[in-house]
Amino acid sequence: MKNRKELRIGLVGCGFMGRTHTNGYKRVSDFFPALTHTPVLKAVCARNAEKVKAFADQWGYESTETDWKHLVARKDIDAIDICTPNDFHAEIAIAAAAAGKMILCEKPLARDLAESQRMVDAIEKAGVKNTVWYNYRRLPAVTLAKQIVDSGKLGRIFHYRANFLQDWTINANLPQGGEGLWRMDAAVAGSGVLGDLLSHCIDTAMWMNGGIKDVTAMTETFVKERMHQLTGKVEKVSIDDACAILCHFNNGSLGVFESTRYARGHKALYTFEINGANASIRWDLHDLNRLEYFDNADESKVKGWRSIHVTDGDHPYMDKWWVPGLGIGYEHSFVHQVADFLKSLETGEPCSPTFTEAHETQKVCQAVLDSAVSGTWKNTGIKN
Amino acid sequence: MKNRKELRIGLVGCGFMGRTHTNGYKRVSDFFPALTHTPVLKAVCARNAEKVKAFADQWGYESTETDWKHLVARKDIDAIDICTPNDFHAEIAIAAAAAGKMILCEKPLARDLAESQRMVDAIEKAGVKNTVWYNYRRLPAVTLAKQIVDSGKLGRIFHYRANFLQDWTINANLPQGGEGLWRMDAAVAGSGVLGDLLSHCIDTAMWMNGGIKDVTAMTETFVKERMHQLTGKVEKVSIDDACAILCHFNNGSLGVFESTRYARGHKALYTFEINGANASIRWDLHDLNRLEYFDNADESKVKGWRSIHVTDGDHPYMDKWWVPGLGIGYEHSFVHQVADFLKSLETGEPCSPTFTEAHETQKVCQAVLDSAVSGTWKNTGIKN
Amino acid sequence: MKNRKELRIGLVGCGFMGRTHTNGYKRVSDFFPALTHTPVLKAVCARNAEKVKAFADQWGYESTETDWKHLVARKDIDAIDICTPNDFHAEIAIAAAAAGKMILCEKPLARDLAESQRMVDAIEKAGVKNTVWYNYRRLPAVTLAKQIVDSGKLGRIFHYRANFLQDWTINANLPQGGEGLWRMDAAVAGSGVLGDLLSHCIDTAMWMNGGIKDVTAMTETFVKERMHQLTGKVEKVSIDDACAILCHFNNGSLGVFESTRYARGHKALYTFEINGANASIRWDLHDLNRLEYFDNADESKVKGWRSIHVTDGDHPYMDKWWVPGLGIGYEHSFVHQVADFLKSLETGEPCSPTFTEAHETQKVCQAVLDSAVSGTWKNTGIKN
Amino acid sequence: MKNRKELRIGLVGCGFMGRTHTNGYKRVSDFFPALTHTPVLKAVCARNAEKVKAFADQWGYESTETDWKHLVARKDIDAIDICTPNDFHAEIAIAAAAAGKMILCEKPLARDLAESQRMVDAIEKAGVKNTVWYNYRRLPAVTLAKQIVDSGKLGRIFHYRANFLQDWTINANLPQGGEGLWRMDAAVAGSGVLGDLLSHCIDTAMWMNGGIKDVTAMTETFVKERMHQLTGKVEKVSIDDACAILCHFNNGSLGVFESTRYARGHKALYTFEINGANASIRWDLHDLNRLEYFDNADESKVKGWRSIHVTDGDHPYMDKWWVPGLGIGYEHSFVHQVADFLKSLETGEPCSPTFTEAHETQKVCQAVLDSAVSGTWKNTGIKN
Repeated sequence: MKNRKELRIGLVGCGFMGRTHTNGYKRVSDFFPALTHTPVLKAVCARNAEKVKAFADQWGYESTETDWKHLVARKDIDAIDICTPNDFHAEIAIAAAAAGKMILCEKPLARDLAESQRMVDAIEKAGVKNTVWYNYRRLPAVTLAKQIVDSGKLGRIFHYRANFLQDWTINANLPQGGEGLWRMDAAVAGSGVLGDLLSHCIDTAMWMNGGIKDVTAMTETFVKERMHQLTGKVEKVSIDDACAILCHFNNGSLGVFESTRYARGHKALYTFEINGANASIRWDLHDLNRLEYFDNADESKVKGWRSIHVTDGDHPYMDKWWVPGLGIGYEHSFVHQVADFLKSLETGEPCSPTFTEAHETQKVCQAVLDSAVSGTWKNTGIKN
Repeated sequence: MKNRKELRIGLVGCGFMGRTHTNGYKRVSDFFPALTHTPVLKAVCARNAEKVKAFADQWGYESTETDWKHLVARKDIDAIDICTPNDFHAEIAIAAAAAGKMILCEKPLARDLAESQRMVDAIEKAGVKNTVWYNYRRLPAVTLAKQIVDSGKLGRIFHYRANFLQDWTINANLPQGGEGLWRMDAAVAGSGVLGDLLSHCIDTAMWMNGGIKDVTAMTETFVKERMHQLTGKVEKVSIDDACAILCHFNNGSLGVFESTRYARGHKALYTFEINGANASIRWDLHDLNRLEYFDNADESKVKGWRSIHVTDGDHPYMDKWWVPGLGIGYEHSFVHQVADFLKSLETGEPCSPTFTEAHETQKVCQAVLDSAVSGTWKNTGIKN
Repeated sequence: MKNRKELRIGLVGCGFMGRTHTNGYKRVSDFFPALTHTPVLKAVCARNAEKVKAFADQWGYESTETDWKHLVARKDIDAIDICTPNDFHAEIAIAAAAAGKMILCEKPLARDLAESQRMVDAIEKAGVKNTVWYNYRRLPAVTLAKQIVDSGKLGRIFHYRANFLQDWTINANLPQGGEGLWRMDAAVAGSGVLGDLLSHCIDTAMWMNGGIKDVTAMTETFVKERMHQLTGKVEKVSIDDACAILCHFNNGSLGVFESTRYARGHKALYTFEINGANASIRWDLHDLNRLEYFDNADESKVKGWRSIHVTDGDHPYMDKWWVPGLGIGYEHSFVHQVADFLKSLETGEPCSPTFTEAHETQKVCQAVLDSAVSGTWKNTGIKN
Repeated sequence: MKNRKELRIGLVGCGFMGRTHTNGYKRVSDFFPALTHTPVLKAVCARNAEKVKAFADQWGYESTETDWKHLVARKDIDAIDICTPNDFHAEIAIAAAAAGKMILCEKPLARDLAESQRMVDAIEKAGVKNTVWYNYRRLPAVTLAKQIVDSGKLGRIFHYRANFLQDWTINANLPQGGEGLWRMDAAVAGSGVLGDLLSHCIDTAMWMNGGIKDVTAMTETFVKERMHQLTGKVEKVSIDDACAILCHFNNGSLGVFESTRYARGHKALYTFEINGANASIRWDLHDLNRLEYFDNADESKVKGWRSIHVTDGDHPYMDKWWVPGLGIGYEHSFVHQVADFLKSLETGEPCSPTFTEAHETQKVCQAVLDSAVSGTWKNTGIKN
């Protein structure tokens, strides 16, 4: 431990994601002892001074700030971690890049394609290390899925389908906007389930199956008006409560994606399935240590979907944890992303997904929103 | 038994569906003894004289025909059951209606909307009893789902999603057309997975959730050319190997449908899910005696999807079979449809789905094909 | 059909099992057309004249009897099928054997070991064809399990475990004895869940894994007294409501069996699992078309329990039914047993399980009851 | 954080359990900020100086010891956490009690009943705070099961069944004894799967369902001889590779327990089920965030096992973690046990299971071993 290089973290935002990221920083060295770098919780920043102090006290940050510009200006910070609502991602990231800081930005990268383009321009100009927290990639079962795809076991891909189903906004009396509910305010979030949930699905999909060429989509806002927490008035709801997408991947396969916060009975049911000529894979976030795999090469009479409990020492990341059969949780995806980021400092390789890669996801999201308005197919402009 | 009125059946076609229907006729009186009518296997018709005789011998038909026009002309036949490939549905049905026969037609009703319109016109003009074999409605778990929806337990409906996934045509060496493979020949079948598989999904969906207002869709033919069994030549494949649909129902809910014969690992995975404000339902043909149900009114700490084994005496149709826990199979859906058809002879009520109802499904299918060509949303013209 | 030899059936008993057997006789020729024999429903016998006539009328028996001795004496009957409560099995079987009839006897073979010994003696002396309706063997998934075991894929066997869980007698107000409830009367049934449910588990277990050497067991009667339907009095309940067994198989593996009618939530949950050095198998009656299989030879990272949907044409019996993915039901196990019995008439081979084999199951049951009384291990006397 | 009282930990042993406990100490204050106490990693002790220094460095212990007697003698230690192999539990615990230290002892408490009796005597005499790490109680789904039982929802209990199935010792070439394999050496471990795995099942069972009155059991050692790592010789294996138990609980319900390390395909499949007159519960460690619950009071037609994803804010411990739908892992059970231990310092209540409670589990284990030898039922001597 003593000889590790420090990565001094300045965190902006202390909500749900502030907690998951911080937990990642605090645990990584216990479980990934071979890394040459170790995070140090230098400072946390949020507008509410009392809240940020309580957060720093609970989690062990050395100092606090209430103005992110001060944080970005500090010499004792190596990396800015952006956990704010989406409307601050671009401004902070661009300033941090200009200040030569590494940047770890919560997803989605931006509210729209113009914003994310500016962010990409900024980090490219500054040449700073960067990554975006599409954390689900780093759940062992999802990483294993990627390894299986990359192994070529699936053969030609025909289909990719993914859903992300929730039910927490069905109640029409739930207000929108403000503390804890900014995800329901389009001005802050950029979009609804598209940016919040489908962006995860799209990130995973393109990581595994390559670029999405074109899309057609529908969006719906089931509850048209809600009380806004900040104005105290009943206002029009502008986010998408639900969004469904048909698409073509550049490799010729078909995609179907659906997300909603109105699927009664589902809390965070992110599922995906990929069908190839020779094999198929499927996964479910509610049983996150498991991957299902069908291999058509199995002997005919005993062929069937295999339920792989992804907890063995030869499964991705799992040599770092316990023993076979003992599952890990959601939060470990963030620990793994921190570990991979630290590793990338050693190797000099990018830590995927970079801003540039996350910008591709923004291209799909933009095409989806455009298609939902026009009712026609939209090209994403993605080439690979 | 002895006092029952006879329903004298003339079956056209002796393939897979000829077997399922015949089995339905032969079993119904054993298990539904209170019915006042009983089917009699009067005649079976197919072009191949040897084959039709073997079929009649195996299943117990009293006589055979090789020309369906002779069958339709017979005075000792009350009902014509059409199990031919799709390209004969219209011609036979229209002739049978003109001859005053009842008609039980295999699904999809027709190859296209124009055909099904002519069929509806014919049965309306003739005033003959009719039904279409969308058999999955009559699996007890599916009928239970319908009862739950009708009970109002779900509240406002937000989402309907259904898939029908198979994998039997992935092999590019599989020929198309002719004996056993006419479903891959667009000239005969009208369409591919749309008419064969999605038509079931659409029938169930509109039965439970009302009319579909508009659609956007994509279709794909993964293997572009195959040897045609009848011509012996490699020919262009014109059916849809896969089809996915986004739609709005007239009640404001959103629908997502997908079907393919290229989903490696799935044999006949028909699944549907419906999400309401208060409750949700889902079902899976591979575990067909089970219905999953989520009721948001359950006490919070012990709330969860209920796995209902639909084998109790108070479940639809199940008082006719065995004892709780002992499942029935696919074929029973046909027995139930026969029972319901016989019952409708007693009551004078229509036996749903009628030609008129199945024609609504054809409207959706037509809009899907049109949308897949134009890349735009298409109205179905369905009002309720 | 016309050239088939007739097997003229005389059925004794027209309850639940009378229906399942009769359905088997009526369907077998439709689905197994290559058989050279075909059953004919010659006569059904039950004490209640009205009931037996109604049954004969519903199912199509040519004639009825109210005294089984008359039935056994009839020259136009080839085979006696015994579906009575257990207390008549021995008497009827012995008389039928003496009359030179083939015998198909419902399980358990007898109420106790002395009875079954006399039955075995009788059929051996008479040299008549015989079988016992341990029908679950003939569900395709169970037969597939047997084939896998016989293939040697499992290697040395370490463990066998089976449960048969029900919940239908929890209500203390349920009467015992008489019509529909004779299974709760020890004088008629011989035992409770042991003979009714565990006998199935033991039959399957020894079929797959060889003889059981010794046992220790516990039985329990949770509701000590119930109104007896025949006497109208509250009487002591003498059957076992629950029974659990530890045992050694002759091959050195360990067995654990449990059955109860007090497992709230389970209707007929017969499950078994067998663990070998190289592979394991498990099965569940509530999802009866599926077999789970784990093969340790699978590549390490993608190893997992395979969920085999046993509905393909190369699965046992399934070439006779529909197409892949379309499940069959409980009743089909009886159709298969009829088919195998008819086949055994062609080949001259025994139709397993014979009385002699079912007598081995009785030996285990007897040792279980003895052990439950003594509290010690009991040898079964089974050698292989 | 700053005002919390310190609980200065001295850990003995730095293997698998040393890691799980340490992780618990390090995370508790982040997630349970309202606690008034906080653990401090004062010292870790192990015989191998190099290893213990590496462990201390990785995990952040302030100091190391190589002789546990030195650790116990230190004035700056409040609590001794015993993570050694089982053969040191008694000696260390008794010395620690004499030194007035609190004790947190890994399970099973002891190798045999005589040892655990001496340990109980020691802590009673010393009056020191104590607990035993039967961690599975503190998985949220298991705690929820306990809450449901305590609520009375189940009514009279009829059945309890639990399995703990593994497959990691099937290979006959695996050596026994020594580093990483002391669990296979009876002299060190006391017993095999009984103490290692079944003790968990018994602890959970008696916690939920009260005392076990008597037992009958069988044990088996499948591989009779293995190379011993410490002697380098092939020696007799004395542990139980497998163990199965029948028992009566004091409340009149029946128990069936089975454990093995020879169940191919299962890594750590701890499952339990409890059946009451009104409701039932079951759970599975391989899907640890889920509890299944059947409530017979549900409306008949829609009754079924509920699959509860135990990740809502009103589920045990879950308000401390993330948001609904996002599961936690195995290790969190230890965090929860630390939290509950710290809470018990505030309240002065015992932290269950105490040595006294764990001694009850030892009574059952002793009776099991005795019964396995004698082949007869053994009373446990447990009264409640």
